[in-house]
Amino acid sequence: MAVSKSELFKLSATQAADLIRRDHISAQDYAQALLDRVRYRDPQVRAWVYLDENVILDQAKRLDSLPVEKRGPLHGVAVGIKDIFLTKDMPTCYYSRLHAHDGNAAADSAAVAILRSAGAIIFGKTATTEFASMTEGGPCTNPNNPKHTPAGSSSGSAAAVADYQVPLSIGTQTGGSIVRPGSFNGCYGFKPTWGTVSTEGVGRFSISADTPGFYTRTVEDVELLARLFRIDSLMTAPLRPLNIAGAKVAFIKTHVWPNAGPGTHRAWDLAHRLIEDHGGKIEDVELPEAFSRCSEWRETVVIQEARAAFLSKYCEDKSKLHVDIVSLVENEDLLSAKEVLEAHDGIARLRSEWDQIARNYDIIIAPSAAFCSMWTILHVPAMNVPGFKGACGLPIGLTVVGSRYSDMEVLQGGKAIGAVFNKSQ
Amino acid sequence: MAVSKSELFKLSATQAADLIRRDHISAQDYAQALLDRVRYRDPQVRAWVYLDENVILDQAKRLDSLPVEKRGPLHGVAVGIKDIFLTKDMPTCYYSRLHAHDGNAAADSAAVAILRSAGAIIFGKTATTEFASMTEGGPCTNPNNPKHTPAGSSSGSAAAVADYQVPLSIGTQTGGSIVRPGSFNGCYGFKPTWGTVSTEGVGRFSISADTPGFYTRTVEDVELLARLFRIDSLMTAPLRPLNIAGAKVAFIKTHVWPNAGPGTHRAWDLAHRLIEDHGGKIEDVELPEAFSRCSEWRETVVIQEARAAFLSKYCEDKSKLHVDIVSLVENEDLLSAKEVLEAHDGIARLRSEWDQIARNYDIIIAPSAAFCSMWTILHVPAMNVPGFKGACGLPIGLTVVGSRYSDMEVLQGGKAIGAVFNKSQ
Repeated sequence: MAVSKSELFKLSATQAADLIRRDHISAQDYAQALLDRVRYRDPQVRAWVYLDENVILDQAKRLDSLPVEKRGPLHGVAVGIKDIFLTKDMPTCYYSRLHAHDGNAAADSAAVAILRSAGAIIFGKTATTEFASMTEGGPCTNPNNPKHTPAGSSSGSAAAVADYQVPLSIGTQTGGSIVRPGSFNGCYGFKPTWGTVSTEGVGRFSISADTPGFYTRTVEDVELLARLFRIDSLMTAPLRPLNIAGAKVAFIKTHVWPNAGPGTHRAWDLAHRLIEDHGGKIEDVELPEAFSRCSEWRETVVIQEARAAFLSKYCEDKSKLHVDIVSLVENEDLLSAKEVLEAHDGIARLRSEWDQIARNYDIIIAPSAAFCSMWTILHVPAMNVPGFKGACGLPIGLTVVGSRYSDMEVLQGGKAIGAVFNKSQ
Repeated sequence: MAVSKSELFKLSATQAADLIRRDHISAQDYAQALLDRVRYRDPQVRAWVYLDENVILDQAKRLDSLPVEKRGPLHGVAVGIKDIFLTKDMPTCYYSRLHAHDGNAAADSAAVAILRSAGAIIFGKTATTEFASMTEGGPCTNPNNPKHTPAGSSSGSAAAVADYQVPLSIGTQTGGSIVRPGSFNGCYGFKPTWGTVSTEGVGRFSISADTPGFYTRTVEDVELLARLFRIDSLMTAPLRPLNIAGAKVAFIKTHVWPNAGPGTHRAWDLAHRLIEDHGGKIEDVELPEAFSRCSEWRETVVIQEARAAFLSKYCEDKSKLHVDIVSLVENEDLLSAKEVLEAHDGIARLRSEWDQIARNYDIIIAPSAAFCSMWTILHVPAMNVPGFKGACGLPIGLTVVGSRYSDMEVLQGGKAIGAVFNKSQ
């Protein structure tokens, strides 16, 4: 593959890793190409809250000097880091006035350490909302149209990848903070099964819901990261390619479908037709009534856990916190132990019930743009698959979900339907 | 209360806070008294892995200059910090060669930030085992007899409090790492309901089990910390003092009773008699058969989650890890998704079943020294109550447990039986 220097920024992570590992291009040239792209685009997109050319080029230089046999699977590949993951060579500020002057961390967060050990260039810190606890806010704009929101809280990570400023980034999802920005900005956004990627060194919002995940522009790149993070270690059988023809495909609107906008409706109908045209055996699945409480239960758990998470911030200096966080900590009477336990135990029952439903299908499709936080608290893998256009020509995606630990099957399903969706454009 | 300078180290946290807040003693004099105690005792006990006299006295000096109205509930009180909690003025090393040269953190862990905001002196970092993932190891000895183990992994935190080097310390429990060292060293060790104290900035072992908790020498001091951390916020009703006379007291040996040593047997029988003598209505409770799988399920969950937690360490430099951690990460075939899900869902069912059983009693007593990790994965409050002597005159305690969020009731129960146990000595 011959790639001109001015086009290097378009490479997927898999392509860039392959070319750099074999010395066809240098990590320094690749990093420089991305920096040029950032310089050209980011004054509008504002995906980065910390980006130091010297820190980037020093990493690239060191990587170029490594002999081929010491090069890891992400050798020279640039990754954007949501600014709630600790990094030892960059500050972490959580888009919070409380941490605005924090220095570099003593050690990398677990996810960053894994990426760095694999040879990735830790490119910079991406824009988020205050403690990643709001869906809106932060400096970032939608790269498709600066007047529109990139969605939050992983806004900068999604925008930077969708805008070809880096091929990979990491974010976190507590409600829909990976899948929604993936849908709004137009890239793959993958939230793995809860607990498979460590949240050590990541800003806390809700311990039962917070889940780190990835943004990419290809499913192949999600797979690259899934294997690096050993998300595939609980697979039960070797993966086989999945054909839409003959596959059992469930469409699940969920109980929050009434909130879906016209763009989602159009994407839904089009996806339905495309998959039918390709021979998929579609089943429109309605979830049992018990699932209608999932969203309310998730809210209860997150409120209770957010209070524990933000108490330290509140004690340190409540005048530097968003008023919503202050009232969350102060309103102690909001919840009773009975409600919190009902929520925890109710969700625990739904997790196993959902797994049983999910195992009946090869692919399960759900809306991305509307409410998608049920999958987070059910702890199941969920991936935004881009491919449609909504209002003002902005991207809209659909979500592929599965049972807990079926992450690699979800990627297979996402690859199959992604191919169908994108062929239609 | 008049206290001679040479006796200041014996004060409980509640006593010290009261005297310092009212300027009866200075934070500096108090800190100096503890430093003298450390100098005298710690060459044998070795509870501290980081302790800098200047860092301590600087904090004390700053606190002494604060006007009375700005003094927090822990003003001037010294707290020991298990060396897996990030601290902004001290390094955090996890008893790991991988982090031996780490510097100070960019920000305090959530628990340390809460303590510091309350006016506590962050006294130093206490000894632990590698990544708090082993029960034995680390430099600390049992203050009652240096030839004996202080138990792990919160060894230094328990030993420092039991040995009157500080009145308070924090630790974490994933199996029995708070309750066991409390029992072995002879102090109160309280593990609250999972999720009530944030683990942000704490070394990860198992996300579903890791729980921060406290060591003290009085139940009053546990209460002080429980209120500071707002563990009381989900209480359903105001607490009333609990009398043993007429109280329904359950004795639960659990399925691992056959592992209990002779010391625990003696403490058990003595506690039985003491509580009966004081008019407690004792019921020997046998748990339903389903609970016999709890320990095996906990093991499955912890192994799976520890693999995710330690992957980053492994990727960074496996040659610097204990061989058990290396094989944990490498043995991918150890568990199947089916086993992990059975464990998660089985435990979830037991949590709600346990709560129902627990609500039938005023006080529930279980062994401390033998296997006590069931309470951790059931997410319920558990407190070691000291008061007995085992082999070689070493301390042995018993555990008071309750249902999820009944933390304050567990403290009430612990106070009532602690008074009875200690009167008997």
